[in-house]
Amino acid sequence: MALAAIQVFPLSGLPEIKPGDDLARLIVEAAQNADFVVAAQDVFVVAQKVVSKAEGRIVKLDTISPSERAVQWAREWGKDPRLVELVLKESKRIVRMAQGVIISETKHGFVCANAGVDVSNAEVGTAILLPADPDRAARALLDRLEKIYSAPLGVIIADTFGRPWREGLVNVALGVAGLAPLRDYRGKTDAGGKTLQATVIAVADELASAAELVMGKADGIPLAVIRGAQLAFGSGVGRDLIRPAEKDLFR
Amino acid sequence: MALAAIQVFPLSGLPEIKPGDDLARLIVEAAQNADFVVAAQDVFVVAQKVVSKAEGRIVKLDTISPSERAVQWAREWGKDPRLVELVLKESKRIVRMAQGVIISETKHGFVCANAGVDVSNAEVGTAILLPADPDRAARALLDRLEKIYSAPLGVIIADTFGRPWREGLVNVALGVAGLAPLRDYRGKTDAGGKTLQATVIAVADELASAAELVMGKADGIPLAVIRGAQLAFGSGVGRDLIRPAEKDLFR
Repeated sequence: MALAAIQVFPLSGLPEIKPGDDLARLIVEAAQNADFVVAAQDVFVVAQKVVSKAEGRIVKLDTISPSERAVQWAREWGKDPRLVELVLKESKRIVRMAQGVIISETKHGFVCANAGVDVSNAEVGTAILLPADPDRAARALLDRLEKIYSAPLGVIIADTFGRPWREGLVNVALGVAGLAPLRDYRGKTDAGGKTLQATVIAVADELASAAELVMGKADGIPLAVIRGAQLAFGSGVGRDLIRPAEKDLFR
Repeated sequence: MALAAIQVFPLSGLPEIKPGDDLARLIVEAAQNADFVVAAQDVFVVAQKVVSKAEGRIVKLDTISPSERAVQWAREWGKDPRLVELVLKESKRIVRMAQGVIISETKHGFVCANAGVDVSNAEVGTAILLPADPDRAARALLDRLEKIYSAPLGVIIADTFGRPWREGLVNVALGVAGLAPLRDYRGKTDAGGKTLQATVIAVADELASAAELVMGKADGIPLAVIRGAQLAFGSGVGRDLIRPAEKDLFR
């Protein structure tokens, strides 16, 4: 039986992104210099940060007036009070605030450290917020790319998140367009003919993680293309990866 | 700049594994029929279940006498009381027991649903436990494979785990040998020359997730080989991915 391998291509050559930049055009230009040719059902994985920069989701820290709560926390843990205030403002619910770490639920519904607010790969004195609506951004990028390449594609906007109980961050899918983010094995049978239960795989998160392996935080490669994954192409949104409150055992 | 792509090859042809089977030999035989040739620094990702089966970590449910607690929980949630008892016995700490779901810490230190006890891809009337020591199993497999192939390799023993706040399971690394499971960017600089903080990536988990994309629960493909990932080969163990209790904000 011939089984398809998956390939994960890093895409370099994206310039430093500025607010208002046409990200789709810059991605296509970067892909023109790659040693592969974009094909139908390729999945573009884009680091959240370049999407945020193109959207202008950049905050000058000296425009932030920290609240008393932010000042106190910052003093206790040696943080920048303006950054703490920004994290609190981007949060709709604090999940944990301990050991100098703020885990909160963002306005989008993501549970992560610092509400996704980040100062690495940002200009000094600024912080970068998550995209306003990662699914909408993924859809807009997909529409442009599919038109340019005249082919069905997938787009994932990804960021690295920590996890409870496990060390290290992994890349996960915030915004998704063009593919089903979950693969549902329920009702299918295992190799022994028994019905599989409760097996839904977060393939979009696994694709994001696979892409991170070639992206590299330090190397400035915020783009990867994944080819050959057996996916359900067509529709799908990243918000389906967010567990609804009534199923959350860790509220 | 030429950047290396990563390839993820599925490996089919592994027979149904029985207790005492020589897993290394069976993997090598499966690889002989693959359409790629194993090379130095290839990473073998092996589903936990075949390792457990080879170790004989199979429990006949009719040997289990359920405790009153197990009987009560099973009645409340429509579960098999023997299976519930087995989950409780494999747990050293219950993290959550709600909505019919048991999240616990296994004797190894993994926090997951049902202590990793699984009945899918198991014979009727039996359940499969996690490997006794996934790192030791990974090391034993690596030693055999490196000897056979006369090349440095990596081995990851993986299982699909759920996550709080996110829907769907992703494959993670339980046992690791031959590669560093964490990539540490702390002290390195970002594209703008600023020092990166708190960025440690769980590359072994990302490799496990990448492998899952070709493995497929229903298709009986418990093996994948990943080539081209820029990893620190040599030493490393999966238990370094387990967050120590004193850093756990979710106890």
